[in-house]
Amino acid sequence: MPTHGTRKEILARFLQEVWNEGSLEAVERYVAPRYTVHHDPGDPWDGKQLSLEEYKDRLVRSRAPFPDERFTIRELFEDGGAVVATWVWTGVHTGDLAGFPASGKAISMSGITVYYFDGDRVTGHWQVVDRLGVFRQLQHLAQAAR
Amino acid sequence: MPTHGTRKEILARFLQEVWNEGSLEAVERYVAPRYTVHHDPGDPWDGKQLSLEEYKDRLVRSRAPFPDERFTIRELFEDGGAVVATWVWTGVHTGDLAGFPASGKAISMSGITVYYFDGDRVTGHWQVVDRLGVFRQLQHLAQAAR
Repeated sequence: MPTHGTRKEILARFLQEVWNEGSLEAVERYVAPRYTVHHDPGDPWDGKQLSLEEYKDRLVRSRAPFPDERFTIRELFEDGGAVVATWVWTGVHTGDLAGFPASGKAISMSGITVYYFDGDRVTGHWQVVDRLGVFRQLQHLAQAAR
Repeated sequence: MPTHGTRKEILARFLQEVWNEGSLEAVERYVAPRYTVHHDPGDPWDGKQLSLEEYKDRLVRSRAPFPDERFTIRELFEDGGAVVATWVWTGVHTGDLAGFPASGKAISMSGITVYYFDGDRVTGHWQVVDRLGVFRQLQHLAQAAR
């Protein structure tokens, strides 16, 4: 079980083990049996409720174009049942994404996520990421490759 | 003086009076003499330190294409010296923006902002907004107008 630690500590370990390392086994320890993507514009799972198996599928598919992706937490804020993370993400674009073929180049993105907890487990999130910034980097790389 | 209230209450009044109503006089009551735009991708003032006069200029210029703009707060989280707001913004596009001529149509956008406080005043922010969502709405309106 994850526990032993504050929710900020749990969230930092969740981001490291699940999203940075891609551990499917860690999903079972950190994620609630029903997980709700409350708001995440541009994410294919926006608005959906996910079982643990569906969460694992989202993890695998999301990481596929950027297998070395890494979320670096900038700050964490805790209030009520939620922890808010500001973060910067980096990844090398080694798989196709939204019509852009793999470029082999590093991409970066910033975002802010509100994670809701039930006990020690995350039950959902409300997130906004700078997807226009990513889109422009991918466009630039595609043009440079012509 | 704003005060009398928690920082969440102050922030809600700040967003209402400064950003929804566009009050320059309210800027003097809610904003610190030095305001830092720590992170705000796509914002022309990203990374800048602003005096009160420069903050007022940013307010006037930002509101110009959307004079009836409105931030609706979804949730507020307070921790340490900061208040995090999740919000949805709406505005009717009545002025030119980033090369898109006024369309007269309603646009919406979501975002999350970390506001830092010194006493009762906001001293800066770290923000991510869904600017790709806005860009696509503007593109769609421009195509429909052809």
